[in-house]
Amino acid sequence: MLAERSDRAVRTRRALLHSAARVFDQNGYTLTTIFDISAGAGVSPGALHFHFRNKQAVADAVEEACASLLRGAGRIAYDANPDALQALTDMSHAFARLLRWDVVVRAGFRLGTDSTRARRQALDQEWHSCVERLLAEAARNDELSPDVRLQEVTCAVVTATTGIGLQIADNAEPRAYHALTGFWNIFLPGLARPEVAKRMEPAGRSAVLADAVGISARARLHLQDDELSL
Amino acid sequence: MLAERSDRAVRTRRALLHSAARVFDQNGYTLTTIFDISAGAGVSPGALHFHFRNKQAVADAVEEACASLLRGAGRIAYDANPDALQALTDMSHAFARLLRWDVVVRAGFRLGTDSTRARRQALDQEWHSCVERLLAEAARNDELSPDVRLQEVTCAVVTATTGIGLQIADNAEPRAYHALTGFWNIFLPGLARPEVAKRMEPAGRSAVLADAVGISARARLHLQDDELSL
Repeated sequence: MLAERSDRAVRTRRALLHSAARVFDQNGYTLTTIFDISAGAGVSPGALHFHFRNKQAVADAVEEACASLLRGAGRIAYDANPDALQALTDMSHAFARLLRWDVVVRAGFRLGTDSTRARRQALDQEWHSCVERLLAEAARNDELSPDVRLQEVTCAVVTATTGIGLQIADNAEPRAYHALTGFWNIFLPGLARPEVAKRMEPAGRSAVLADAVGISARARLHLQDDELSL
Repeated sequence: MLAERSDRAVRTRRALLHSAARVFDQNGYTLTTIFDISAGAGVSPGALHFHFRNKQAVADAVEEACASLLRGAGRIAYDANPDALQALTDMSHAFARLLRWDVVVRAGFRLGTDSTRARRQALDQEWHSCVERLLAEAARNDELSPDVRLQEVTCAVVTATTGIGLQIADNAEPRAYHALTGFWNIFLPGLARPEVAKRMEPAGRSAVLADAVGISARARLHLQDDELSL
């Protein structure tokens, strides 16, 4: 009986998070109301308040779920690639696909870049540290051209990929999604030593991407909610 | 007497536009009220309505002023450079500086990328066409590497630079401003033939930038309002 009740609570929380993601994605944080979110999940505002203190708390939970999915996808891309530069390329492509296909990721990313919100997950800082670590690893593995300035290139990769991400999330620029391959086509030969550049795949390694992006579908189907805070 | 009255009308309209730019830049379109804008210009809401029908009309005027300043700066960068690739580089740097320093440009750019607004200036489309034309010109002038795929590279340059611009305008990423040089440092050698790449300046040509960015100061000091719709 208790298990049944808790099962239902888990389902309700998940429905609320997905409804919140859809509404935040469509209307932005400011214009979204608690009522829109509860109505979208087919429950009363009271039921929402059983799970979340206020709109801010729902937004935080959507951001956490987004961060968790991106981290999972990033880990898969990292583990599958011996070259740090290819891992970085694959990660960026996996994130771009999740931004495009997964409403929780898209809403979480947009909430994180909404300047009208007070508290925000530092997803952008996390991506900066991740790019920094991968490029440092590429330097240690002797993957990089000798004249690459690490700090400057880190900033360029972070801002260019974040910028492409913003445009994918905003759906403002349908071509943004394809631009990522164009970006790596030019950037990888500039970054990598010629021998390394030859084995790079600027469009991402499709098997790795399928695996990394699949995490979002698997999260909904198989994983326990507490594992992904979904 | 009539001239005096019309002088004052011009000054009021200009004060309203600058107040609107400041408020839109700070609070975004949705949260801004007609009262915030008129109060910031030191006039009554009634005086605002003499110049603009509603908030949408003020936002349109800010966007038009922004577009006009960017076009002026772009023209200067274009005319000063025999190499199309350097013109493109200088334009992007001039726009980045205007985004950082000029509140009308920053507000206009943010209004143009605000997905909650119905009608918007197609600044992003204009930038896409501009990059397309400059890269086609670079190809005709034999500035480009033979393996560059024009359409793909156009998308990559447009989205990466727009993305960097979004982050400068949002002030979310203080490093974004410097990332532009990092971007061109890697991108130009990938785009240009080696002989052309050697004479490129990825940080922009400072004399050209001073001239192009100066347009925003000159617009406020000397030019007639109708020339710039300011």
